[in-house]
Amino acid sequence: MAFEIPKYRHPDFMQEKFLNAPNVLWEEAPMDGVAPEHYHSTSMYPEYFKINGKWVLAEESRMDSSVILCEDGHLEVVENRNLKKGDKVILGRSEHCEEGIYIHVNGFVDEKMKIKDQFVFRQGRSRETSYARDYDKLFELLRYEKEHGNIVWVMGPAFTFDYDARRAMQLLIENGYAHGLMGGNALATHDLEAAYFNTALGQDIYTQECMENGHYNHLDVLNKVRRCGSIPKFIDEYKIDNGIVYGCVNNNVPFVFTGSIRDDGPMPEVIGNAYEGQDAMRNLVRKSTTVICLATMLHTIATGNMTPCFRVMEDGEIRPLYLYTVDADEFVVNKLLDRGSLAATTMVTNVQDFITIVAKGLGLM
Amino acid sequence: MAFEIPKYRHPDFMQEKFLNAPNVLWEEAPMDGVAPEHYHSTSMYPEYFKINGKWVLAEESRMDSSVILCEDGHLEVVENRNLKKGDKVILGRSEHCEEGIYIHVNGFVDEKMKIKDQFVFRQGRSRETSYARDYDKLFELLRYEKEHGNIVWVMGPAFTFDYDARRAMQLLIENGYAHGLMGGNALATHDLEAAYFNTALGQDIYTQECMENGHYNHLDVLNKVRRCGSIPKFIDEYKIDNGIVYGCVNNNVPFVFTGSIRDDGPMPEVIGNAYEGQDAMRNLVRKSTTVICLATMLHTIATGNMTPCFRVMEDGEIRPLYLYTVDADEFVVNKLLDRGSLAATTMVTNVQDFITIVAKGLGLM
Amino acid sequence: MAFEIPKYRHPDFMQEKFLNAPNVLWEEAPMDGVAPEHYHSTSMYPEYFKINGKWVLAEESRMDSSVILCEDGHLEVVENRNLKKGDKVILGRSEHCEEGIYIHVNGFVDEKMKIKDQFVFRQGRSRETSYARDYDKLFELLRYEKEHGNIVWVMGPAFTFDYDARRAMQLLIENGYAHGLMGGNALATHDLEAAYFNTALGQDIYTQECMENGHYNHLDVLNKVRRCGSIPKFIDEYKIDNGIVYGCVNNNVPFVFTGSIRDDGPMPEVIGNAYEGQDAMRNLVRKSTTVICLATMLHTIATGNMTPCFRVMEDGEIRPLYLYTVDADEFVVNKLLDRGSLAATTMVTNVQDFITIVAKGLGLM
Amino acid sequence: MAFEIPKYRHPDFMQEKFLNAPNVLWEEAPMDGVAPEHYHSTSMYPEYFKINGKWVLAEESRMDSSVILCEDGHLEVVENRNLKKGDKVILGRSEHCEEGIYIHVNGFVDEKMKIKDQFVFRQGRSRETSYARDYDKLFELLRYEKEHGNIVWVMGPAFTFDYDARRAMQLLIENGYAHGLMGGNALATHDLEAAYFNTALGQDIYTQECMENGHYNHLDVLNKVRRCGSIPKFIDEYKIDNGIVYGCVNNNVPFVFTGSIRDDGPMPEVIGNAYEGQDAMRNLVRKSTTVICLATMLHTIATGNMTPCFRVMEDGEIRPLYLYTVDADEFVVNKLLDRGSLAATTMVTNVQDFITIVAKGLGLM
Repeated sequence: MAFEIPKYRHPDFMQEKFLNAPNVLWEEAPMDGVAPEHYHSTSMYPEYFKINGKWVLAEESRMDSSVILCEDGHLEVVENRNLKKGDKVILGRSEHCEEGIYIHVNGFVDEKMKIKDQFVFRQGRSRETSYARDYDKLFELLRYEKEHGNIVWVMGPAFTFDYDARRAMQLLIENGYAHGLMGGNALATHDLEAAYFNTALGQDIYTQECMENGHYNHLDVLNKVRRCGSIPKFIDEYKIDNGIVYGCVNNNVPFVFTGSIRDDGPMPEVIGNAYEGQDAMRNLVRKSTTVICLATMLHTIATGNMTPCFRVMEDGEIRPLYLYTVDADEFVVNKLLDRGSLAATTMVTNVQDFITIVAKGLGLM
Repeated sequence: MAFEIPKYRHPDFMQEKFLNAPNVLWEEAPMDGVAPEHYHSTSMYPEYFKINGKWVLAEESRMDSSVILCEDGHLEVVENRNLKKGDKVILGRSEHCEEGIYIHVNGFVDEKMKIKDQFVFRQGRSRETSYARDYDKLFELLRYEKEHGNIVWVMGPAFTFDYDARRAMQLLIENGYAHGLMGGNALATHDLEAAYFNTALGQDIYTQECMENGHYNHLDVLNKVRRCGSIPKFIDEYKIDNGIVYGCVNNNVPFVFTGSIRDDGPMPEVIGNAYEGQDAMRNLVRKSTTVICLATMLHTIATGNMTPCFRVMEDGEIRPLYLYTVDADEFVVNKLLDRGSLAATTMVTNVQDFITIVAKGLGLM
Repeated sequence: MAFEIPKYRHPDFMQEKFLNAPNVLWEEAPMDGVAPEHYHSTSMYPEYFKINGKWVLAEESRMDSSVILCEDGHLEVVENRNLKKGDKVILGRSEHCEEGIYIHVNGFVDEKMKIKDQFVFRQGRSRETSYARDYDKLFELLRYEKEHGNIVWVMGPAFTFDYDARRAMQLLIENGYAHGLMGGNALATHDLEAAYFNTALGQDIYTQECMENGHYNHLDVLNKVRRCGSIPKFIDEYKIDNGIVYGCVNNNVPFVFTGSIRDDGPMPEVIGNAYEGQDAMRNLVRKSTTVICLATMLHTIATGNMTPCFRVMEDGEIRPLYLYTVDADEFVVNKLLDRGSLAATTMVTNVQDFITIVAKGLGLM
Repeated sequence: MAFEIPKYRHPDFMQEKFLNAPNVLWEEAPMDGVAPEHYHSTSMYPEYFKINGKWVLAEESRMDSSVILCEDGHLEVVENRNLKKGDKVILGRSEHCEEGIYIHVNGFVDEKMKIKDQFVFRQGRSRETSYARDYDKLFELLRYEKEHGNIVWVMGPAFTFDYDARRAMQLLIENGYAHGLMGGNALATHDLEAAYFNTALGQDIYTQECMENGHYNHLDVLNKVRRCGSIPKFIDEYKIDNGIVYGCVNNNVPFVFTGSIRDDGPMPEVIGNAYEGQDAMRNLVRKSTTVICLATMLHTIATGNMTPCFRVMEDGEIRPLYLYTVDADEFVVNKLLDRGSLAATTMVTNVQDFITIVAKGLGLM
């Protein structure tokens, strides 16, 4: 069964509510980083704004941001902290054309899939949900995206603690299933610790044996990379030949590592400022068509906030942007659950097992 | 790398402490189901008792039970509730020969494996532990046990909610990797619901779609099986041809289903009395050499309590009894952690993924 | 602010759909413990059945059971396993009068409380929910129920591991806030271990110090109670003067302890057969107006299944039956979430803290 | 029972191993932010270094950092990223004087408290641990610290979601139980949202009702504070009179808010750069004698890494630095468990309940 991208159903702008709607209002930002009163704030969904009688889509959207009307008439979605004094900020907080704003929640919803029976036992997704079809669909999706899309992976450090998971991820990268990778300083650190010492926090990633003085390992790796001045130079100088970071460097897969207050080090490439880090992350997400978040609450929520449920392709086609969240803890995955059902898939499992199943499902292991 | 059973190192009974130890004392049980004061209670480990100057092993042991000296001189490990008035119950609560009792904690411990470095980061096992080697060892172990051992599976109902997991388990059963199976009424109920309706609690186990009035499905299956009078008759009458219970019935794999206060139904085969249920479970466990508990706190702890860390084979050889606990929740697996390290392996993951990885690792999927 | 029982709004039987509905059908149970095809199965809600043109409420309901039409015209809700051959079992699986059955979902719903805004962040209840008002309402409710209702407590064994929690519960019992108590063998065992040894599993319940050979403590208590023949005799003989079980015995609060396959012992009062246990539990629940389940998945779900969201008082008044579930784990509390919003309150916290806050809120500590 | 600070037992430097130990070696940092090979890295414990035949304590320590020998002979503990080229960095990775380094693990350990019995059931701390004595000791400790110490609170945003918890924390601040407070942008944001709108993420923090368009609330507060230019100006201009942040501002309790990639806003006071944030946090921690971390994995681990288990007071006295971690999730608290037992206390509960119990225990509510 080959994968087929769901068709986007544009709003029917000939309906009364669209025709009768007023033009949307705007007001200038009163100072840098501050929106005017009654600013409109974006959602995950496609949002249309009536400007000079025409409904215009804000194309590169994200959640909780302002919409700026640019000189050339196109709309830009900008985090409030990035507003400049004088930016024309769209106003309005209604969603059904009342103020010239329309949020298109059902652009990809298949009518057939709606559930009729109201007396349902299991609504949320938990460790007890059946994920068999989700896996099968993901295999298809990844094969499709490898050719036609852009897959961004987001992951926590624990991912590198397991020999199989680390190898599976490297194989996915080497076989064209990764177009971008995001994580924190610890991901880079422990992956390179594994590459250099074969340990994670001093424990062998295969045999689980603890090396003597192994708690020095990640600090030593950090120190060596900092001395080298960059991750690629460390990889070159120390002849690193395996792992996730190595895979990215070797295959020109762009990565964004952002810092946090938990960090040792950090690695030279890590972006220490959280808001510059957000900007760099969003730049990766802007190109993505599938985003897969693995075992990191911090990076998953950060990514989820900046990932809309749609992508406007270069040819103008609108398609879903698929977001997956995989975590061992229901609490984490449920934090991102309130999104359009077609666009977000949450799975409760150990990400080590998840990634080896994915690599096997794609015939890589 | 072929699997090798660790050698058992018998205690060196020529050591002073064994030679100088007194004979163990006993006293008659004062009434049915009641032990005498200062009774000895068993552990998971091999325990030796000095009787008439000879050290005798209690062969079929379990935790928290009394040891009875039988007429023929052999020792039986009996739950206190099953004591009969007049049974000769062993007394003593020391473990190093002081009262003629020796608990042999290190029978299988490999000296090489002991960890030297005390400054260790990660001691427990969590979602962040590397399980790569555990999987590889399990594949080897299961291949060995298929030929030479006895594998008992213990599982919670959620196991049947996933299409892949259910199929993987059926394949394991059909290919000789199951010599016994234990669970509750819900396991049997939802597995047969899946076989008959393709749903679990009314939700399709592959597509996740909710059937109209699907909350009747498990009740209807229960009602039909009860009308048939037995699970095998239901399988026959309704031409069931898939699933875990079907696999057991079709391959003569004995199962024990025990009841709980959560049950609907129950199925005719379910043992309603908890203590008769324990007895039936222990009879399966007595033959087992590997026990794998999946996603059920109740049955896992019940099984763990009655599973020693060793098995005396028919030829007198003593070998480890391997116990695995797999659950999505650290809290559950850690409840069983305090056992001999060689004998208990805990893994934190979704059991659906676990079982498909096992089936794939054995070449069955 | 004094507590006020919400008024029950009876269905308006003069509406067309009630007037035009057919009488409900029934069929005899074909054999003991088996319902006829197309039997109706109950929910948590008040359910009305049209019999000889009159709508009759099934008064003492519970979930997942059959409805029997008795000789005298009243309706009894009976678990399928308790059906007798020839019982007149109501048929039909629609809920809006189509087959003479009406499920009254909104009997207690306050129109004012309905939420208008659909764009809501936090829908479920988690560790991040505000429970301040829930506590305040619970204090009021308990004060009301002490005089006018019937409070049943359901609890797991961990409850007895903490000095403060155990004392708080004893105070609630001694001050009239408990009309029934349910739990497992372990609750009774560890509470009496705490009373006799001041330990839980050998660990001091206040200082956390581990007693030497403390793992014998609960076994010794079990053995002593079994020798005594009953819990009250043990309390008397060993001069027990504190704890939860002591509080019940001393204040004539009925308790039901049901067995499970995890049990040691068991205590003489424990009901070993799960289905007899269910019957005994339901008999306590039949009188209850508030049920509070604390830190036990097994007993909470069992209780939840047999607890409707309403109670018909002796004077014919219909009032809500309040069900609380308190557990440290979202997974557990969410299992019971799909109930009428007025009737079920879930709180995510450590039950030790919960109960001391309740005792303090009622002025008992 | 009044609280008594445990006495510190200095190492006995007259022992052979100290007398025979060589002087510790050092080497200059080869470049800014890079340590020399074989650098020594610190632990939580007091560490002594033999310099010119004298054993010198590194007074203000933290984990995973280098030790610099300063011109004046005193030792400074410096994160590697803060090293300057030419800093004299101590070398050596042994702990028992072999290289002139001694790690004093048992400075505060009471011999009486050591546990004798090895066969212990419950070793870790979980929702099933008895916390009664921990609470009582904490009440005493806080009363002591109010007069003689320095209490720093670290907290996640969920803390502000509950009316009672927020009030309890405000009372603790107003009554002298807080000498510093640390958290993220979200803590400040949602606390001020609660102060201004009485909501958290749009949901009333007492009634749990969702305000229409309530998802704008936190964004509006952020926007207003950013327009005001600082939190104190916002509090002044909008007449804020309640909450945690208000309490700090009004009582001159210093706070450190550090940014993360999840942030909206941020608030003007938030430190966006993670490593500058760490430095600011450590400056608060340097003065602390008790640190209490509540419901935040990120900030808890960050704080834990920079908090040693001892504090050298101005008069030279060495006392324990008490660290508490409170979280609903065992996984989080166990991440910090591997510390000296006297110094770290972990509690598994909902922090809302924790803080109201603390405020009540101190007589504030």
